[in-house]
Amino acid sequence: MRLWWERSDLGYSSEGRLQLGGKDLATLAEAGTTPAFLYSLPRATANLQAVHAALDSAGITRHRIFYAMKANRFMPLLTAFAQSGLCGIDVCSPEEMLHALACGFSESDISYTGTSISEADLDIISRHPGILINCDSQSTIRRLARRGVFTKIGLRINPAIGTGYGDSQLLSYSGDKSTKFGIYIEQFDETLALAASLGLDIVRIHFHTGCGYLERQLPVWERVLEACCSFMDRIPRLEAINIGGGLGVRHKESDGTLDLSQWADVIRRRLGKYNCEIQVEPGDRIIKDAGVLVLRVNTVEHKKDTLFAGVDGGFNHACEPVYYGMPCEPVPAVLAGPKDEVFAQDALVPTTIAGNINEALDVWCKGFPLPVIREGELLVLLNAGGYAAAMSSNHCMRGRHYERLLL
Amino acid sequence: MRLWWERSDLGYSSEGRLQLGGKDLATLAEAGTTPAFLYSLPRATANLQAVHAALDSAGITRHRIFYAMKANRFMPLLTAFAQSGLCGIDVCSPEEMLHALACGFSESDISYTGTSISEADLDIISRHPGILINCDSQSTIRRLARRGVFTKIGLRINPAIGTGYGDSQLLSYSGDKSTKFGIYIEQFDETLALAASLGLDIVRIHFHTGCGYLERQLPVWERVLEACCSFMDRIPRLEAINIGGGLGVRHKESDGTLDLSQWADVIRRRLGKYNCEIQVEPGDRIIKDAGVLVLRVNTVEHKKDTLFAGVDGGFNHACEPVYYGMPCEPVPAVLAGPKDEVFAQDALVPTTIAGNINEALDVWCKGFPLPVIREGELLVLLNAGGYAAAMSSNHCMRGRHYERLLL
Repeated sequence: MRLWWERSDLGYSSEGRLQLGGKDLATLAEAGTTPAFLYSLPRATANLQAVHAALDSAGITRHRIFYAMKANRFMPLLTAFAQSGLCGIDVCSPEEMLHALACGFSESDISYTGTSISEADLDIISRHPGILINCDSQSTIRRLARRGVFTKIGLRINPAIGTGYGDSQLLSYSGDKSTKFGIYIEQFDETLALAASLGLDIVRIHFHTGCGYLERQLPVWERVLEACCSFMDRIPRLEAINIGGGLGVRHKESDGTLDLSQWADVIRRRLGKYNCEIQVEPGDRIIKDAGVLVLRVNTVEHKKDTLFAGVDGGFNHACEPVYYGMPCEPVPAVLAGPKDEVFAQDALVPTTIAGNINEALDVWCKGFPLPVIREGELLVLLNAGGYAAAMSSNHCMRGRHYERLLL
Repeated sequence: MRLWWERSDLGYSSEGRLQLGGKDLATLAEAGTTPAFLYSLPRATANLQAVHAALDSAGITRHRIFYAMKANRFMPLLTAFAQSGLCGIDVCSPEEMLHALACGFSESDISYTGTSISEADLDIISRHPGILINCDSQSTIRRLARRGVFTKIGLRINPAIGTGYGDSQLLSYSGDKSTKFGIYIEQFDETLALAASLGLDIVRIHFHTGCGYLERQLPVWERVLEACCSFMDRIPRLEAINIGGGLGVRHKESDGTLDLSQWADVIRRRLGKYNCEIQVEPGDRIIKDAGVLVLRVNTVEHKKDTLFAGVDGGFNHACEPVYYGMPCEPVPAVLAGPKDEVFAQDALVPTTIAGNINEALDVWCKGFPLPVIREGELLVLLNAGGYAAAMSSNHCMRGRHYERLLL
């Protein structure tokens, strides 16, 4: 029996112990403390290599990956990425830029795409003229030019169509309604004129039009690229096209996947004609399925007609299940019996996993069919590598967690 | 002309400068840094006194307020509260308990009501036998008893009906669907038997059935109290009833208010017969309208057909507008002309206030009718005293903010 999320580097040993990259998760959690985020560097590296391989196979030889730091900024991870040479890094604030430098990235490895950029931000940015900066507003262009440091810039554009996780309206980056990001076609001409009048050369077009797109959304994504062409066609000295991030990850059994070779084919088909470097900024796709969150169950109890399992970490450590309605797969770290029996349909019990924050919404998942779980046992939440610890808060002063990179 | 949110301690001076408790907000922000949370101690104190006065007037002389720390744990504020003698403090984690002690509260001032309590939590709690502890599950009762430190406990119950902000399903604490909180009537008998068998005396009943209730919800709230009576009636040595928090605050012009005298009348009507101490745990009601968040506008620009004002702080500093759909009132710190002209209907421009986080959802408010605003000016977000800084994150490493208590 193979569970839908099991893969060569993640699954139960013959003794029923969950392993990630050959490491025993219960042993690691017992030796440390919970809540614990554990990240597999080999998996993250494999994810980077898979993106490279897909682009290479499609004939897009001139390409660069800029890992999106905001998905996970754990310094050991970033340091390993910097050393690997497999990627540059995508940052969106001066603090992230300095953090990237702190972990070993050089200025030329850094792609900076911000929004609502302040004067203070520009002062810091301007001390690092080697970074690749993409401007998302005329205001930024005007104020950046005043500093006289950059001569070549990228322009973030907004094609007014987008893709993404279907479940959450919160994740819409581009579409019918105006978003704060990028230059729309309505303002494109005057933006080009503005940059020219200020002596700034636009050499890059950047867009990010959604997050979490999977295979079934590739046709829409192809239309997005098509729409972007009307912007690119107007840039005479185009050196690179940055297609942003947003590559999806499978969160539940019924989710589709994203075949990277099909994805790369779309890019070649629509952007190959420009014969310039293709830049891509995946975050979740690199790190989400490389990370897990280990929690300890402290309370197992029926309340009214519902079986609750209370754990020692809440939504403040990983807010996607609560705020974005995104699925969360909880699995035991150690099985109480043979896997086939433990996961047999009639052995599973609808269980609501509740965190330890005094907020009603602090529930990891409701009525999830879970093997019988007991107080004191360890639960592992899968797909906790991205947008979890990086967005965590100290709400109710429950913010403490341990993070560890597994080599 | 009086704006709906203006009050004796909050409003524009004759020179068009926004003042809180007589302090000029622009001057404070200019002297410090933005984003800046500024909290008025006089307003918070007045809010505490108003709750006391309402309960006194209703004849509920034996009452205590336990301020809900999770709304705002800024140490200067807590220290001032501890010194004032106006309130004890409601905590929900060992870290919050230690934080309360650190700010000068004594054990007997601390009401502890947690959920999904771990063994490690209980170890710390048990070193402080003077606190008032309310258990919300049989598991906690069982494991607390094992430590042999407490003899009298409170019981958090769940009456299965609740009230609250209408807009967000995320804030439902009690109702048709089972929540993780408290003991339901279905498990009440066995819980009483369990406590008795372990030698624990239940002397307090605690419930918290919603947050943000206003006057129009008082009839529902009265039914909540009525439902709770069937629990209280079964406790022979009842010393106190803790009615939780949840008292609402007016967020927008069309919101109702909560007349505290009517609120107190309901309590007297339903709970007066028990002749025991009434405990109440307001958080938002005390601190929300005593605090503001000052941000600087860095970008004013049309994107497609929308006017955006970009500011130097995003939803990671105060998540309620984005995640809970709660209204956010932005006002200029300094007016460009006479108030009547600046706020005249035909002078207001629909403006979308966008934060500096690279997430599409990072918008404070959409198309808000705002006086004309220019880059470099200061915007003040009202009602930012509660569940803002306390829930903030370092997402995109944009977490830095300044907090200051105004005496």
